[in-house]
Amino acid sequence: MAEAVLDDLIDALRRLPGVGLKSAQRMAFHLLQHDRDGARRLALALEHAVSRTHHCARCHTFTEAEVCATCLDPQRDPHQLCVVETPADQAALERSGSYQGLYFVLMGRLSPLDGVGVHDIGAAPLLERAADGVVEEVILATGFSAEGEATAHALGEALRARGLKVTRLARGVPVGSELEYVDLGTIAHALADRR
Amino acid sequence: MAEAVLDDLIDALRRLPGVGLKSAQRMAFHLLQHDRDGARRLALALEHAVSRTHHCARCHTFTEAEVCATCLDPQRDPHQLCVVETPADQAALERSGSYQGLYFVLMGRLSPLDGVGVHDIGAAPLLERAADGVVEEVILATGFSAEGEATAHALGEALRARGLKVTRLARGVPVGSELEYVDLGTIAHALADRR
Repeated sequence: MAEAVLDDLIDALRRLPGVGLKSAQRMAFHLLQHDRDGARRLALALEHAVSRTHHCARCHTFTEAEVCATCLDPQRDPHQLCVVETPADQAALERSGSYQGLYFVLMGRLSPLDGVGVHDIGAAPLLERAADGVVEEVILATGFSAEGEATAHALGEALRARGLKVTRLARGVPVGSELEYVDLGTIAHALADRR
Repeated sequence: MAEAVLDDLIDALRRLPGVGLKSAQRMAFHLLQHDRDGARRLALALEHAVSRTHHCARCHTFTEAEVCATCLDPQRDPHQLCVVETPADQAALERSGSYQGLYFVLMGRLSPLDGVGVHDIGAAPLLERAADGVVEEVILATGFSAEGEATAHALGEALRARGLKVTRLARGVPVGSELEYVDLGTIAHALADRR
């Protein structure tokens, strides 16, 4: 594919996370040969998403409105605020069907190696949001990776310093797993947090 | 991400080959949070590729012109015609730097299970192209998968019936490989085709 317009397409596809040269070539070929309609639809969806979405003024997730539908939902409990890293994490919590409070989406996590500090992950807007006088408990639901734990630690300190009640999702053995295949760190936490 | 415009983007990304729900969510999040410029660029590249590329009138590869640059190149040997499955295969042969003839790109291969027959892979245009009176040898460079072999077999029969000289890429031990790790079928072919 020596044509400039194809090289442009392959280069643009390679900027997607997890897509290398071979995958980008395969995608470009597939779209042009078998799914031009899909290519047009993707172009339009990208255009719309980029031009119409911005951050929710209250929880920072992506939304087309000033404030997102979840934040405006009167059915949700405004006393609980759950802090997640990404909209995908929020969606996972929603699918569990066991949380009725509100959210705050960091859109990232602490990552000192990549130069992402506590200011870059929206700590200040979170502190302001949590201090609205209605929120009683902040549930830290960042990931259990090293970066997610560091993020929870840093945010927890700052929130507690402002007198807020801060909790963290429980660590333990995943539902459905055999103990012999669970890693040692998880077993140690499950033992320490036994109830 | 409950917003319609985001769901549209995730759905459109899922139509790409090898992209499932999780990857599509990750791509959408990455583009909106970290690379809106890349999203705009991808939308534009898709739009351009779909509206400007069509098949080369001679070799069937994707091109913006009536006939592609390779087919028009007077430096190439018009007596040899190499048949490949995709533009990516053509690019691989070009990178090897050991072929100076022309190409015919099938844009597919026989796949009876998916309902892809010999008419769907451009057999008729290939026979017409190869019968231009200039082509002396047709080199079948389809893959060495079951489908690629079946494609080479079917096309080879049809081309030979029209009195054309037909050859196939050599099967054998890949350069740099240890014999003990090479599969038995390849060793059998390398023995039979020894020179």
